[in-house]
Amino acid sequence: MNEQGILHVPDSKYCFPLDTHRLVLRLRMDRKDHPEKVEVVYESKYVIHEKQQTIAMEKKYEDRLFAYYEVVLSLADVRLAYVFRIWENGKGFYFSEDGLSETYNFSLGYYNFFQLPYINAVDVHEETGWMRQAVFYEIFVDRFFSGGDAAQKEHVSLEWGAKPKPKGFAGGDLSGIICKLDYLKDLGINAIYLTPVFCSVSNHKYDIFDYHTIDAHFGTNEEFKELVDKAHEKGIRIVLDAVFNHCSEFFPQFQDVLRQGKKSPYFDWFLIDGEKPDSTNLNYEVFAFCSYMPKLNTSNSKVQEFLIDIAVSWIQKYDIDGWRLDVSDEISHDFWRLFRKKVKAAKKDCVIIGENWHDANNFLQGDQYDSIMNYAFTKACLDYYAFEVFRAQDFAWKLNHLLMRNTVQVNHMMMNLLDSHDTDRFYTSVHQNKDRVLSAMAVMCMYVGAPCIYYGTEIPLEGGYDPDNRRCFDWDASHWDSAYRTILQKLLRLRMEEPVRKGDIRISADKELFILSRMLHDTEIVLLANQSGTDIDISLEGKILVENHFSVTAAPEQRAVRGTLASDGFVVVQGYYGALLKIL
Amino acid sequence: MNEQGILHVPDSKYCFPLDTHRLVLRLRMDRKDHPEKVEVVYESKYVIHEKQQTIAMEKKYEDRLFAYYEVVLSLADVRLAYVFRIWENGKGFYFSEDGLSETYNFSLGYYNFFQLPYINAVDVHEETGWMRQAVFYEIFVDRFFSGGDAAQKEHVSLEWGAKPKPKGFAGGDLSGIICKLDYLKDLGINAIYLTPVFCSVSNHKYDIFDYHTIDAHFGTNEEFKELVDKAHEKGIRIVLDAVFNHCSEFFPQFQDVLRQGKKSPYFDWFLIDGEKPDSTNLNYEVFAFCSYMPKLNTSNSKVQEFLIDIAVSWIQKYDIDGWRLDVSDEISHDFWRLFRKKVKAAKKDCVIIGENWHDANNFLQGDQYDSIMNYAFTKACLDYYAFEVFRAQDFAWKLNHLLMRNTVQVNHMMMNLLDSHDTDRFYTSVHQNKDRVLSAMAVMCMYVGAPCIYYGTEIPLEGGYDPDNRRCFDWDASHWDSAYRTILQKLLRLRMEEPVRKGDIRISADKELFILSRMLHDTEIVLLANQSGTDIDISLEGKILVENHFSVTAAPEQRAVRGTLASDGFVVVQGYYGALLKIL
Repeated sequence: MNEQGILHVPDSKYCFPLDTHRLVLRLRMDRKDHPEKVEVVYESKYVIHEKQQTIAMEKKYEDRLFAYYEVVLSLADVRLAYVFRIWENGKGFYFSEDGLSETYNFSLGYYNFFQLPYINAVDVHEETGWMRQAVFYEIFVDRFFSGGDAAQKEHVSLEWGAKPKPKGFAGGDLSGIICKLDYLKDLGINAIYLTPVFCSVSNHKYDIFDYHTIDAHFGTNEEFKELVDKAHEKGIRIVLDAVFNHCSEFFPQFQDVLRQGKKSPYFDWFLIDGEKPDSTNLNYEVFAFCSYMPKLNTSNSKVQEFLIDIAVSWIQKYDIDGWRLDVSDEISHDFWRLFRKKVKAAKKDCVIIGENWHDANNFLQGDQYDSIMNYAFTKACLDYYAFEVFRAQDFAWKLNHLLMRNTVQVNHMMMNLLDSHDTDRFYTSVHQNKDRVLSAMAVMCMYVGAPCIYYGTEIPLEGGYDPDNRRCFDWDASHWDSAYRTILQKLLRLRMEEPVRKGDIRISADKELFILSRMLHDTEIVLLANQSGTDIDISLEGKILVENHFSVTAAPEQRAVRGTLASDGFVVVQGYYGALLKIL
Repeated sequence: MNEQGILHVPDSKYCFPLDTHRLVLRLRMDRKDHPEKVEVVYESKYVIHEKQQTIAMEKKYEDRLFAYYEVVLSLADVRLAYVFRIWENGKGFYFSEDGLSETYNFSLGYYNFFQLPYINAVDVHEETGWMRQAVFYEIFVDRFFSGGDAAQKEHVSLEWGAKPKPKGFAGGDLSGIICKLDYLKDLGINAIYLTPVFCSVSNHKYDIFDYHTIDAHFGTNEEFKELVDKAHEKGIRIVLDAVFNHCSEFFPQFQDVLRQGKKSPYFDWFLIDGEKPDSTNLNYEVFAFCSYMPKLNTSNSKVQEFLIDIAVSWIQKYDIDGWRLDVSDEISHDFWRLFRKKVKAAKKDCVIIGENWHDANNFLQGDQYDSIMNYAFTKACLDYYAFEVFRAQDFAWKLNHLLMRNTVQVNHMMMNLLDSHDTDRFYTSVHQNKDRVLSAMAVMCMYVGAPCIYYGTEIPLEGGYDPDNRRCFDWDASHWDSAYRTILQKLLRLRMEEPVRKGDIRISADKELFILSRMLHDTEIVLLANQSGTDIDISLEGKILVENHFSVTAAPEQRAVRGTLASDGFVVVQGYYGALLKIL
């Protein structure tokens, strides 16, 4: 046994409550160890010295290095004490806070058993239920659609469809989005994430000077209200972008500091090394190195109050459904804790999604965000479909690995994405290979968490790095690839299937075939994808739900199908519990 | 390289700020791996794709399984991105969020480097400075000393010095402690932790019915004020016991619920499954299984407010210096976060010490407690000195292991103890072997964190499990072991030496010799302890500060000393940087 590979951390993603009486325990071991059995030996911490219960753990996930064992405990007395027992060659080894041992003395256990001493309701990370069936569409407002004649707008400097420039305005607006709600609903969307819409001089509006007003380029507060109301009527939720790390240099409080320096009551709202902000010598903290985006001091309680009031106000006045948090990882934990309390008090199912590109576990313990934009998922898809550094097994391992970064609840609320306004478009990354986009999309729609497609993916739209990834949507449907779009629509609808929303996930590879399955009770939906470069002949049982480049080679006999899955192709099958595919 | 043994977690005890410009990075590896070099390759996250800096890590700690590498980074731009580089056989391997790799592409690093995106002042866990030189004395008030004639007190049922009974009262009180402040100061104490002193019908007072009043058994609020003031005059701090997990059945709010059931405004202050609390069927949550100690619902914001007001009030009215938190691990994180905010706002250097017997890392991230009662340290000492399951090397490994459970700041604020009112007395655990008590005490006084001795240890007092561990202090000095007591006093004074308060710690074993060293600049203080069962001949350089069973066998020549360290003995030496001992 590779003792150094064993890991368990109580009160973490390895031990967390689902509600006040159920909790998940996980144990990590070296993947190359093959214990005969892994068990939890447990009881109430006040009686474990006298008697213990035992329950088997199931090996649920494997990544390149590790296997993860999991069990859900339902408890009457939630003051849990436990140790693990790992069986190897007929011998049980105990694993406690003191590590591995051949025997374990339960009468001294109070010193070194693991424990979850009590499940306090207020500490349980409650899932925002609608995220399980959410399908997001990210809109970069200036480039999506204009409700009026864009060309007639005063601020417009970019002809619709022309190559984007960093500072060009194309004229997209909120009324344009309202016009397209039916389009989006038909596409299979039920949630929209809007890049910022508040007053700002830029086209992206990540430099805000008035957080209470919709920027005139995009419309009015009344139009925003109309957008939310109409979207809600159609069952579409609206998530806004909270740019709280920094503001615009035109933010009145910053302007006051520019005028008054240390005399300004807002001096401490920023992080200034000197008497006054000096944009030439950049003596104040900013976003990246942009002097026009001064960083807000979120350690200051007045700033906290100001920003959180904004977050609450857009919920109370406009009934928005969530906040996506810009540059959230540079903002204090303390700020996000208060933010969560106030936001959830205003609207319990308002989702909070951080923009952390990296493992954000410390923000995702239930006291801060609900989830993040899952750029690690993006990177895994790029490694498999674009950079081709992953083979099927690597991709499966990585997707399992990412599930083990966080709790079950967080995974269900993840915003999974292939691209965004901050990356190259996935379609461009895979060199305009639509089959690969669809295959990746199939993975995203079947994986745990809410898929988020970037506007135009359905056409598909091309785009390299910023500003090229912000091209104008091409509304001339004759330019669209309708076959591609039809498959994409089917994939988005897969997300509504119960096993995909709620079921267990298993991700593996069989030779070069990538396999992702979701199972609930005895219903299983399985995705098979082939990126091997050659055809794979398979036989399978079940009903084909979606497919691309899968050709049936033998006539279906009962429910058995033989076929060939071409490289870059995939097939999604609804089978039975235990239904098996065979690589021929 | 044992890849499964490598661990790093950003924004955790493996990566944490010391202040707004300095942070500690740690990397864990298999102890049996011996890389030629371990480095951090880092830069501001906004420029790391273009250029990187490199700094070497130092191997600082070893436990049974792992070696821990550490480096402190001082940064101008605190938006840190980093990967590790591990050199083996002349080849550098990169370790990032994606694991180990032979090459690393910094231009795609934004997907998988490690990061500490920004150090927000409000998230930094600030050390409570006085804890670095604190020496605690825990007093179980009823058994320490009575300021008046205990025998005359109405409630007293236990003759002073008689065998303790669970419900007996011996008459110790606050005025008794006031009388003994000079005694304690002379002993070398500068902080007192008092078990509960508020209104309660029991001798231990862990079942409180009035949190605002000193129990009449112990005195008055005025006497408590006098105690704090006089203690402060003598440089002694006072820490009280916060029993917030549960209250007494006589707590008026619980009484109201007993009367009114669900109609009581306090019904939700408790966790009741039914219309009314029923102590026969125990349909409400309690401490352990004690029906007279109903558990408070700390998920309830009214309960939070009520209890936190109490915590703040004793700071504001009486200027206490800290709270020890009873059964703190069964109380919500949410509660402790609010508690910390209010307590630290009332008195910044009020220390917060949880009673978590287990790894409490999730409570010790700077947002909840400062530290805990370090029962894992207790257990390590028991394993070495009492149960004899540890040899010197195991003990060294374990003490290193415990240091790696938490951040530097938390380690400095730990309350280390050999015993308490909740354990057998250490003296009894080691079968009345005073040499072992002194040797363990030497370790405790030299280790990182504040030593806490349980009242009577200096006599020493015997005692098995509760109630025997709560014997009356024997004030007849003719019964004391004065030689033992003198060494103990010297050990407590060691704690004031700068290297012990502030220096680096190194813990190791050389054959059967246990070695603990603290070094600051070029001053080093070294403890050598022998529990091998046989004498160990050693030569050493330096000035002997404290010793027990160390006999000099060769005349000191310059600063060199040859001697024999008997089993159960120890010696503390102040040497020079690089001073070496030799086992002969």
